[in-house]
Amino acid sequence: MRAVDIIIKKRDRKEMTREEIEFFVRGIVNGEIPDYQVSAWAMAVLLNGMSDQETTDLTLAMAYSGEVLDLSGIVPMEVDKHSTGGVGDKTTLVVEPLVSACGLPVGKMSGRGLGFTGGTLDKIESIPGMRTNLTQEEFKRLLRDEGLVLAGQSGDLAPADGKLYALRDVTGTVQSIPLIASSVMSKKIAGGAQGIVLDVKVGSGAFMKNLEEARQLSRLMVTIGTLSGRKVVALLSDMNQPLGRAVGNALELVEAIDTLKGRGTADFTEHCLVVASHMLLIGEKAQNLDAARKMAEAVLADGSGFEKLKQLVKNQGGDAAYVDDCALFPPAPIIRGVQSPQKGYLSRVDALEIGEASVNMGAGRNKKEDTIDHRVGIIVHHKVGDLVHTGDELFTIHARDESSWQMAANSVLSACRWQEQPCEPLPLFYEVIKQK
Amino acid sequence: MRAVDIIIKKRDRKEMTREEIEFFVRGIVNGEIPDYQVSAWAMAVLLNGMSDQETTDLTLAMAYSGEVLDLSGIVPMEVDKHSTGGVGDKTTLVVEPLVSACGLPVGKMSGRGLGFTGGTLDKIESIPGMRTNLTQEEFKRLLRDEGLVLAGQSGDLAPADGKLYALRDVTGTVQSIPLIASSVMSKKIAGGAQGIVLDVKVGSGAFMKNLEEARQLSRLMVTIGTLSGRKVVALLSDMNQPLGRAVGNALELVEAIDTLKGRGTADFTEHCLVVASHMLLIGEKAQNLDAARKMAEAVLADGSGFEKLKQLVKNQGGDAAYVDDCALFPPAPIIRGVQSPQKGYLSRVDALEIGEASVNMGAGRNKKEDTIDHRVGIIVHHKVGDLVHTGDELFTIHARDESSWQMAANSVLSACRWQEQPCEPLPLFYEVIKQK
Repeated sequence: MRAVDIIIKKRDRKEMTREEIEFFVRGIVNGEIPDYQVSAWAMAVLLNGMSDQETTDLTLAMAYSGEVLDLSGIVPMEVDKHSTGGVGDKTTLVVEPLVSACGLPVGKMSGRGLGFTGGTLDKIESIPGMRTNLTQEEFKRLLRDEGLVLAGQSGDLAPADGKLYALRDVTGTVQSIPLIASSVMSKKIAGGAQGIVLDVKVGSGAFMKNLEEARQLSRLMVTIGTLSGRKVVALLSDMNQPLGRAVGNALELVEAIDTLKGRGTADFTEHCLVVASHMLLIGEKAQNLDAARKMAEAVLADGSGFEKLKQLVKNQGGDAAYVDDCALFPPAPIIRGVQSPQKGYLSRVDALEIGEASVNMGAGRNKKEDTIDHRVGIIVHHKVGDLVHTGDELFTIHARDESSWQMAANSVLSACRWQEQPCEPLPLFYEVIKQK
Repeated sequence: MRAVDIIIKKRDRKEMTREEIEFFVRGIVNGEIPDYQVSAWAMAVLLNGMSDQETTDLTLAMAYSGEVLDLSGIVPMEVDKHSTGGVGDKTTLVVEPLVSACGLPVGKMSGRGLGFTGGTLDKIESIPGMRTNLTQEEFKRLLRDEGLVLAGQSGDLAPADGKLYALRDVTGTVQSIPLIASSVMSKKIAGGAQGIVLDVKVGSGAFMKNLEEARQLSRLMVTIGTLSGRKVVALLSDMNQPLGRAVGNALELVEAIDTLKGRGTADFTEHCLVVASHMLLIGEKAQNLDAARKMAEAVLADGSGFEKLKQLVKNQGGDAAYVDDCALFPPAPIIRGVQSPQKGYLSRVDALEIGEASVNMGAGRNKKEDTIDHRVGIIVHHKVGDLVHTGDELFTIHARDESSWQMAANSVLSACRWQEQPCEPLPLFYEVIKQK
């Protein structure tokens, strides 16, 4: 078998066999297939596509290209959730404690933020002492004994995906739905997931800018789940405006804590309850979605979800006092509001512009090596559909200094549009894609 | 400017600017753009194509990526010919002496054979002492003083093309008409050509398997000529069966010498006269094609074309006695005919199979490092359309040993098809594509 023949096959729109895909993935990992062949192949895949079977074969080959976590002796069924990334998406920090409080153990491996999307690890690390670089033994022990653990993803998982992604990033081959789908799913499968709830973001602040693309990606990931024997459901949720109110690391963590305390906004709370319900259903903790929803509502109402988060922080070396008293988080030097310059119904509160403004203030990374400032960020007081008056506070900006505040203020205002006529709020979810 | 953005532009079917193409070609040569970006770009070009302007810009950028030969002080107009490669194609060895004998100086840089196609250098080097690795000074001196020189292509010419081709070869990106066109034309332009006659081969023994592809390639190369201010004409000629009678290095050289002595076959002589006429016309030695044809016929008939070849051999250190007396060429150990096993009209004498049989006997190279045996090869006695009887000699095989003869005999027979009904001979030329 020769790599060039596999490239030519894809170039000529033919279907690769499982053996050819496995050969290619093995060659990526052991370096026998040089980068220039991998990138030519990736471009052929991007332009000519892959069948569902090819995409599933690639997913499994990448998942098994390194160590695959076997959690079968530790939990009855490992259920994971994955967000494709967005602005203000602190869902994991609320949902995982709720689900765990319902008796479904959750061991989550999360990523860090890059570009306009934030990362769960960066948010939880706003708490002093919090450790996320756990050994595999620690991860398994916390999952078994505590039913909740949140760690960074090990570099040993799906190494083929890591190498391929690094190459795609510099060769214009990121935007391929089959390659995105197999990248996401390979990491989840390598992490031992048997059930996966996918939160696929759609809109300006997401990788998928329109519903049709998001639908294609979701269907493909659900199909990969079916073909690889995993239970998968995909929720298509809005990312045209930031999720919830807070954008920025400590600010988002505080919003998550408030939500677990029952003091969240209605829309973000609703978002979390829906995601949690799907996890409970897939994890076979409930017979149907209604029953799952009631369980999630109950652990939110009685505070046991909140207690789970506090325990998680304690288990991983964090100072749980911060969870009890959010006033302990060090404030940014400048905290000041931005007022609406006009009256009208908000028709646009653009997630991408707000996300980028937050990153530029220091809340995120433009390059992997950048360090982040946990204090800074933006609070979004109004959403699309709201009627605002001149002088109403639209945003509160938490900034490192005056010039940073000013830049962000300009950006967040340019992210907004007002209109005279009433405007419908944006939906939380667009649709749910289930396995057949 | 970033290479990845240029890749993305081509991926998204947008047109690259001349500045972007020049940036990319510069990056290929100085190594600043890594191979994995170049190959992803090449795949995007292959699958999404390039406009005529982009292809011309690429051609010129590659031509000027290294030294460009300036022959303007040496000859009034440098006219080159280029064959896209085929089986039994010894045209250069006949045409260049004829054209030179008509008073149009010809300085030709040729290649070596690879795969089923032969190379002019390998053929002429069948003569002991013949030197083709000339310095640029020798090349210019012979061109100026003798009006005829045949040399190997300098590695300094169009280095971007050399690097890009090596990468295309291992990434499945050879078969792109714009990339083939710009590769051919960049080398010709770097070699100083102001006028170019392209002999574009079509058929089983050529890179272009069908007329439509060959037409596209020809039109594109002619357009590049127009856009870059060169005079270019493309002749589409048949390569479904070998050209002329001989396939193999010394055998082909002998056929060329015989042809210059006026003893060539009618079809190969005709092929050479047509190519020579177009060179004379482009080189402004004749007012029209008829006049050019008469000039070429005259120097063939009076032996001055033959004398030019003899002088070329002498000038470059070769033993001219071989040109006078072809019996001096050392014969292959086994020379034996292959008879027709049946009666019928030949409907197929496949160039590719015969070319590969010759290479496998040692007449060509499968890898660049292979050495060749100048003695071996195949004489083709009958062409498509001929009526042959059982026992008629179809081929004479010149082989190194018995087993080699036997393998070739099997191959050449499997290259033939017979039919009861009469069959039209194949045309020499399909069409001529001129500049508008």
